[in-house]
Amino acid sequence: MALIVQKYGGTSIAGPERIKKVARRIIDTKKRGNRVVIVVSAPGDTTDELIKTAQQITPSPSEREMDMLLATGEQMSSAFLAMAIHALGEEAVSLTGGQVGIVTDETFTNAKIRRIDTRKIEKELSNDRIVIVAGFQGITAERDITTLGRGGSDLTAVALASVLRADQCEVYTDVAGVYTADPRIVSDARKIDRISYEEMLELASLGAQVMVPRSIHVANKFGVDIHVRSSFSDEEGTVITREVSRMEEVVVSGVAYDKDMVKVAITDVPDRPGIAAKIFGALGKEKVNVDMIIQSSAVGAGVNSISFTVARGALRKTLDTMEKVKQEISAKGIVYDDGVAKVSIVGVGMRTHSGVASKMFSALAQENINIEMISTSEIKISCVIKEKDTEKAVRAIHRKFGLGKAPGKGRK
Amino acid sequence: MALIVQKYGGTSIAGPERIKKVARRIIDTKKRGNRVVIVVSAPGDTTDELIKTAQQITPSPSEREMDMLLATGEQMSSAFLAMAIHALGEEAVSLTGGQVGIVTDETFTNAKIRRIDTRKIEKELSNDRIVIVAGFQGITAERDITTLGRGGSDLTAVALASVLRADQCEVYTDVAGVYTADPRIVSDARKIDRISYEEMLELASLGAQVMVPRSIHVANKFGVDIHVRSSFSDEEGTVITREVSRMEEVVVSGVAYDKDMVKVAITDVPDRPGIAAKIFGALGKEKVNVDMIIQSSAVGAGVNSISFTVARGALRKTLDTMEKVKQEISAKGIVYDDGVAKVSIVGVGMRTHSGVASKMFSALAQENINIEMISTSEIKISCVIKEKDTEKAVRAIHRKFGLGKAPGKGRK
Repeated sequence: MALIVQKYGGTSIAGPERIKKVARRIIDTKKRGNRVVIVVSAPGDTTDELIKTAQQITPSPSEREMDMLLATGEQMSSAFLAMAIHALGEEAVSLTGGQVGIVTDETFTNAKIRRIDTRKIEKELSNDRIVIVAGFQGITAERDITTLGRGGSDLTAVALASVLRADQCEVYTDVAGVYTADPRIVSDARKIDRISYEEMLELASLGAQVMVPRSIHVANKFGVDIHVRSSFSDEEGTVITREVSRMEEVVVSGVAYDKDMVKVAITDVPDRPGIAAKIFGALGKEKVNVDMIIQSSAVGAGVNSISFTVARGALRKTLDTMEKVKQEISAKGIVYDDGVAKVSIVGVGMRTHSGVASKMFSALAQENINIEMISTSEIKISCVIKEKDTEKAVRAIHRKFGLGKAPGKGRK
Repeated sequence: MALIVQKYGGTSIAGPERIKKVARRIIDTKKRGNRVVIVVSAPGDTTDELIKTAQQITPSPSEREMDMLLATGEQMSSAFLAMAIHALGEEAVSLTGGQVGIVTDETFTNAKIRRIDTRKIEKELSNDRIVIVAGFQGITAERDITTLGRGGSDLTAVALASVLRADQCEVYTDVAGVYTADPRIVSDARKIDRISYEEMLELASLGAQVMVPRSIHVANKFGVDIHVRSSFSDEEGTVITREVSRMEEVVVSGVAYDKDMVKVAITDVPDRPGIAAKIFGALGKEKVNVDMIIQSSAVGAGVNSISFTVARGALRKTLDTMEKVKQEISAKGIVYDDGVAKVSIVGVGMRTHSGVASKMFSALAQENINIEMISTSEIKISCVIKEKDTEKAVRAIHRKFGLGKAPGKGRK
């Protein structure tokens, strides 16, 4: 008898009708002869509403109390779903993270899972019950309630699939899987059947909002295959897995974009050793994540210009930090541009294929799109461009690499 | 240093502004040199909304899952209140019933408290923190979440006050205390300063919706004085206590009414032993609570008529049960009247005073109000009348006993 872990996101269970529909899908899974463990997110907008009320009480609520508050959303969902399953005549039991025994450290609002006690779940499964676990939450050794941060319910599902040695881990969401590009921008974007953890990590960090990197890291570490699929259809989605065997000619898997970025430039920095260390050391101390960095020097001029990108939410902190180090590094000016975006191509095939970068650049050139910064890794090439050109760029690159056509069917 | 338990009801903490106001009151209490334990209900309409959604999923949700669901309301309140206290610069910590260690039996939706572990609360108090406990909930030995039933948060407060040997137990609500009659009906209804557990029990069961009988029973058993007062003012409320010393002439404490009742009559029942036992035995088996019972027989006729009252919600079940026993007891007809109500006077002074009943009856007679049923106990006299006469009756009785005047000030 196979063990299947299914995770349902907030939109999948927003409202009684959707909850009932999900309940039927779960029962179908069980009736096909499987043991089933379900992980649920908070219903619809519940979390946002709780955060809104908390903000009306105080602009900076205590993190322990935020976790105490937000954990109620998933607890509600788990109870609602158990009720819906009961109403259809099957046995089910809801459990909070604490009741399961998902023990975390004490980093409230962003806790790390330390260990999971599987006894309670295994006991309920052996009683032929569907087990419904409130996602996103755990409990400290002191029994304080914690939450796992963004994408925490996915993490609960992947972690449970790992410790329970589940045969499958299905993540149900409101999209049908991982696409070669954002289908809202590229009309012939194609659903990818299988993708490697590495590629998915790059796509996730580049703004393809299917799963946050953390869950994929954990899945990779423990070898859990994740099947991302839609809760609104029976269609197969995308399997994120270790080994992806595919036709040689598939070089690029997908095109991603990210508009949540600002370019910051420090001009007229003396060309001396240790300057970059000072700048990025100061930012690191302030916990600002820097994405791309470019240093350019006019030969013989003795001065450099250093540009880097950060998330928009980190701009204020970045500028404050730069003002502090400006004197120390004898820089002249600090400028920023929040009208930029990043487009990227991702694919493990790139490792062994040459000419991929130039193909991407020429796609952008043909559309008269100026490239401001470039960064490359073994499986990714990113370009910073003007934000207004984002959609045009994604479409041009997607077309250039023939991503709209099925793999192995005459791709150039 | 005194220990004070305060309980705040749903209306007291409905919305950010009220939560902040309550937080200030709590901090004031602590700053007067007290240790403070707070019990909170769910905010405003949260519980009703959760029940509504559950009903949309299934008309008969599992009781375990209802408790899992409803316990979130109080958990939210406790977190919100802790945040508000932090924002004002004081230390506070919220705890669920399970985190405190309020261990109950397994009667989901109406659990009984078995024991309370005071260690966690005492530890937090010794760290100079305000402890905020989510009311209405507990946990079984198996760590399933339970709720305590109607008025459960009051019960949490009284039980905590008892085990912690608190110096005071204050129950904050949206009324200023216990009145001699419903102030919405009787304009000169007077707030009672002190009232005995016994009288409060009678008033509560008679429809004065200040506290449910269960909490008062527990308070009585463990000798906890309850101070019922308004969260919207600093005025003293009503202390419910064991010993109430007062002027000899105070005979009647208050007038209560109850419209949630139906009168059911079984006509032409043969005058044989065992008939009443059959009727009320059958109702007892169906868990129908019968309030007043009157049996009248026409002398020599050999037939009786039996009338009794039940809550409106129990009418359907009552009639079904009566249809079943009708044949067995050879009764002719079953009729009911849902246009009735009960008015009652309550007072420990009645025990030693004669003429109280006749004074009540004459108050009703002067208003031309017909009495359909009468029941008396040592500290209570109740009359069933037409529902439409309720307000008139309450006013007449209140006036007749001079309840609007302060005790000891020339009452007749």
